[in-house]
Amino acid sequence: MDNKIRNTINRYDMLRKGDTVVVGLSGGADSVALLHILLSLREEYCLTLFACHINHNLRGEESDRDEAFVKNLCESLSVPLEAVSINVKEQVSPHESLEETARKLRYREFQRICTEKAAKLATAHTASDNAETVLINMLRGTGTKGLSGIPPVRDNIIRPLIRCSREEIEGYCEKNSLTFVTDSSNLTNDYTRNKIRHNIIPLLKEINPSFIGAAARMTAIVGDDADYLEECAAEKAKECLIDGKYDSKALKALPKALKCRIIASALKEKGVEPSTLRINRCEEIIEKGMGKVNLCKNRFAYVRKKKFYIAEEIQNYRNKTT
Amino acid sequence: MDNKIRNTINRYDMLRKGDTVVVGLSGGADSVALLHILLSLREEYCLTLFACHINHNLRGEESDRDEAFVKNLCESLSVPLEAVSINVKEQVSPHESLEETARKLRYREFQRICTEKAAKLATAHTASDNAETVLINMLRGTGTKGLSGIPPVRDNIIRPLIRCSREEIEGYCEKNSLTFVTDSSNLTNDYTRNKIRHNIIPLLKEINPSFIGAAARMTAIVGDDADYLEECAAEKAKECLIDGKYDSKALKALPKALKCRIIASALKEKGVEPSTLRINRCEEIIEKGMGKVNLCKNRFAYVRKKKFYIAEEIQNYRNKTT
Repeated sequence: MDNKIRNTINRYDMLRKGDTVVVGLSGGADSVALLHILLSLREEYCLTLFACHINHNLRGEESDRDEAFVKNLCESLSVPLEAVSINVKEQVSPHESLEETARKLRYREFQRICTEKAAKLATAHTASDNAETVLINMLRGTGTKGLSGIPPVRDNIIRPLIRCSREEIEGYCEKNSLTFVTDSSNLTNDYTRNKIRHNIIPLLKEINPSFIGAAARMTAIVGDDADYLEECAAEKAKECLIDGKYDSKALKALPKALKCRIIASALKEKGVEPSTLRINRCEEIIEKGMGKVNLCKNRFAYVRKKKFYIAEEIQNYRNKTT
Repeated sequence: MDNKIRNTINRYDMLRKGDTVVVGLSGGADSVALLHILLSLREEYCLTLFACHINHNLRGEESDRDEAFVKNLCESLSVPLEAVSINVKEQVSPHESLEETARKLRYREFQRICTEKAAKLATAHTASDNAETVLINMLRGTGTKGLSGIPPVRDNIIRPLIRCSREEIEGYCEKNSLTFVTDSSNLTNDYTRNKIRHNIIPLLKEINPSFIGAAARMTAIVGDDADYLEECAAEKAKECLIDGKYDSKALKALPKALKCRIIASALKEKGVEPSTLRINRCEEIIEKGMGKVNLCKNRFAYVRKKKFYIAEEIQNYRNKTT
């Protein structure tokens, strides 16, 4: 496994000499293995390591047990630890699952600490998490980006274990006599992920025991494709953009792969979720050379005077032009 | 469903006025619906329609029952039918499954008839088949192309039902009082497809009842991306190619998405299956600026004198240069 992780670190340029790295440490097998691996690379990369544990206070005594375990572990390894206690239940909004809120709050804390220390954040996501994420995205009807799974690197976040399966990590812990805690509520609130992890992936593994590895290879390839397409689209978008509006004829002439990405980023920029339906409807008016699409509430996509743009409906303007 | 099919036909430019179309007619719900739909479009598109039934002789009396059913159906609809009887078992090779051989022989017969009639071939693949194919490809560790599923159009083959689920087609048959035969051996020799169809997709539908539609949207998007990337790669390949060898420096400088596609097509051109491993090893010697990779048997990839190429090992040449 060591080799696989080294390859991943090199391939995605995760570590540079002298880096400061904060390890997100839940106390589970994955994050304990991650800390152990980064410690083994500390000298070679002149790393400054910190650990950060978030107590979500969602599992009563078990949450406190995990925090105590992590404190002990870090003390024994002489790794400075920041333990943060958050109250997820108090902050959950009606439009969000508990899981989603927990995730947001966790990353907020992680990033606060990373900013303080000018550090990278290392998370313990595995190839197994990646395979689950791809299937979840597929179920929702994703595009190429969703099929590239969990990105190995995003901004300051690095995921050195992203090509190792959960089984490999458990093997690594055993080989290195690493102790860790087990989350008894592995069946958390995330219905979809649990169903995929416990019911669907085992069936897929019956067909191909190396499914997790196959998914890792796939996401790596598709990730490269998605990155390249994003770059091409961003470049073309610049060429089509005049005073914040897109030349609709130039857009129309582009291949679908780029056109859809430019429409998606135009929508995102105005705070509109770029669903397939919205993108298709924008494409239709670009194809026609004129038209208006109600995207949501008072936000519209227009093709007017050979320009494509997203804007809020302004009553006066409307009266003047219609 | 009619609208969906019309959109698919338009979107992929499947039919032109005056086309001759051969319908692959097994007698099952999908192909019976397909024939019915093409008959309903016959006048509008001035189509000349034929049907072709392949009796694989794999299911004893049931095979003959299906052939008789199809003959009756075509007679009642006044559609000329060519019924072909093939012996799959006699022609199966040790490296192939019965399913695979049957598929190859079936398409060979279809294409023979299409060539005779200068016709397009319409097959009854559905969005359900497409979702299964994507999952099968995922299990094998595919790239973007494999994730685009069953192509709606390839060469002279058109698949008007590719965005309709099996349930929609059964509904269509019911609504139009269409009779069809049922393959009692739906559990055929294709272990993987059956497991996916009968065990895995039902679970995915429990999470998202519209999974088949989500997969259809996904494959449409990813298919556009894959097409565009293929085009870009083909264009760049031409720029890098000098006297049948690739300028290795120019290749090295390309984004991974294009580099891998060019390597893959160079391998395919020399009859070497472009596996991820082989592509990666070719990439390595391109990166280094020199080297040699044994691809299979006596076939090698080389980077020599700033050129990348695939060739057979020639003993004399080797003695001279080493």
